Amino acid sequence: MVQTNQEIKLTSMKKEHAEQIDNALNAIAKKDVQSIFFVACGGSMASLSSGDYFVSREVAVPSATYTSNEFIHRSPKTLGENSIVILRSHSGTTPETVEAVKFAKEKGALTVAISMDEESPLCAAADYVIHYNYKDGSDAIDGEAGMYYTFIFKLLNQLEPNEKYERFVNQLQGLQSLIDINVNEYTAKGDAFGKKYKREKLIYTMASGPYYAHAYSFTSCLLMEMLWIHSNAIHSGEYFHGPFEVTDYDVPFLMVMGEGASRPLDQRALDFVAKFSDKVEVVDVAEFNYGQTDEDLREYFGSILASPVLRVYADGLAEHTGHPLSVRRYMWKMEY
Amino acid sequence: MVQTNQEIKLTSMKKEHAEQIDNALNAIAKKDVQSIFFVACGGSMASLSSGDYFVSREVAVPSATYTSNEFIHRSPKTLGENSIVILRSHSGTTPETVEAVKFAKEKGALTVAISMDEESPLCAAADYVIHYNYKDGSDAIDGEAGMYYTFIFKLLNQLEPNEKYERFVNQLQGLQSLIDINVNEYTAKGDAFGKKYKREKLIYTMASGPYYAHAYSFTSCLLMEMLWIHSNAIHSGEYFHGPFEVTDYDVPFLMVMGEGASRPLDQRALDFVAKFSDKVEVVDVAEFNYGQTDEDLREYFGSILASPVLRVYADGLAEHTGHPLSVRRYMWKMEY
Repeated sequence: MVQTNQEIKLTSMKKEHAEQIDNALNAIAKKDVQSIFFVACGGSMASLSSGDYFVSREVAVPSATYTSNEFIHRSPKTLGENSIVILRSHSGTTPETVEAVKFAKEKGALTVAISMDEESPLCAAADYVIHYNYKDGSDAIDGEAGMYYTFIFKLLNQLEPNEKYERFVNQLQGLQSLIDINVNEYTAKGDAFGKKYKREKLIYTMASGPYYAHAYSFTSCLLMEMLWIHSNAIHSGEYFHGPFEVTDYDVPFLMVMGEGASRPLDQRALDFVAKFSDKVEVVDVAEFNYGQTDEDLREYFGSILASPVLRVYADGLAEHTGHPLSVRRYMWKMEY
Repeated sequence: MVQTNQEIKLTSMKKEHAEQIDNALNAIAKKDVQSIFFVACGGSMASLSSGDYFVSREVAVPSATYTSNEFIHRSPKTLGENSIVILRSHSGTTPETVEAVKFAKEKGALTVAISMDEESPLCAAADYVIHYNYKDGSDAIDGEAGMYYTFIFKLLNQLEPNEKYERFVNQLQGLQSLIDINVNEYTAKGDAFGKKYKREKLIYTMASGPYYAHAYSFTSCLLMEMLWIHSNAIHSGEYFHGPFEVTDYDVPFLMVMGEGASRPLDQRALDFVAKFSDKVEVVDVAEFNYGQTDEDLREYFGSILASPVLRVYADGLAEHTGHPLSVRRYMWKMEY
């Protein structure tokens, strides 16, 4: 594991942001919470589901992640007055998610909307709002990961208090430094990845545990949406039960090796895939630079840092394919 | 919707099979059930998850589906003495699932194993066993779908009684006739599909609701495992949040249009994909032949019948690619 001498700067969350989180938590504290639902679409759903992973592992409250329209049409029977529904949409305008918050409220659930736009329809409809800054030059603690993980770990601490969660929330104030250090360290690797794989029409991703969300995002939003490269996010545990039969010397895999409880699943998949494919790229989360982060908190940071690091790999592909990540052929261009 | 004059023959489940289901249900009746876990790998996991769909929709008991190794390594905090863990493995030898049943028992959960082999390690380790017949010429009511759906709907009826579930269990005795009629009606379509798509190196699948499990199975087990064709099972609701950008005139999609609550999601995805791809094949579950099945029970039967009908499409690909579904390069041939 790489160690750093670089300074980790701790930044406090903006007061109005901290208050939003506290307001939501105070309301949740008054409920007899029987279920927690994470509801969003695409990359926002994937981001929420990494929080769901830690909820499911650490507290004895049933939780589930749904894509917004499935949530509405399935209408889970456990949804009701004792439910918390956490929704997320970057713009706050995703129609299915706006519908979902209304649906959840009709069922009596307490709703918390997470978005970069407090004036959006999603936020207007929700009981509580958690805003995050986006590309405005402010510190990561006020950005999407800082706000979401602070909220989730304060929620965990409220549901089943543990000093570990408090340490995590404190150390999360160094997130911006950790992102900067890791993005810097991975930029050359991301570029080399783009150079090597620029001719590929299909790249599989693979991960497990909270990192499956990152594989899913990379597949759906970066490869398929932004780069028009075919893909499938394979769960490392499921790889051996079907998907591994497509493995061959010329089939590319981007493997996210997790840090934490799920790592043995990834190791087993990597041992196999590396034997039969000549095109395996590994992003090893255990090798990220965690600065002075406590050893037992690394798995939480790993799941956050995987996102900006993987973005660098997409940037590498964009650079060498000449296909900017901002190009779309359908999204934002027509009704659907 | 096609109507039939063909006779639906009702067959009673074998006495020893009915007793196995009753034994499991009697034990569950003595528990204060707080959570239900469905745990298996690959196609078995997908089959279980269609049951999970109906549990989540119809009764107020939290449920979740896990691939076996993720279940063990994540170790969900809600797993305990008030949990029911339903596991499935065709051979009953899947190592991760055998580990999972032991893990669940250590946590105090009541375990039910579903397998074609009662003497298998999975069944030996579980508290209760539900055996199904496989390719022995016996009626479908004693096969995997007949046994599993009888168990699930009797479980639903025990948790929250509803005469609908009783009607379903009774009409399920006509399953073999319905399978035969539908497989017969779809054989020519499956063959035409194989002929048309035999040159494709990649075929996406798409579905939602309980049918997502079928898309997942078709992608992982039939296309990737058995036919070595690249694929990804896209959720119809998620299609618009990333994956749809890979759509083009020459990108093939196999769309499973569901019967039931999730159909509007599929319709929206179909309306879009059919506009931009010239290679869209639709398997419309609403057009299956349901014989004299009650209208309100069709969505349950649809999810069962989708499996043998989709198999016919894989048979078509196998026939025209000259790649038998039984061929493997890794599975059963080496340690992994």
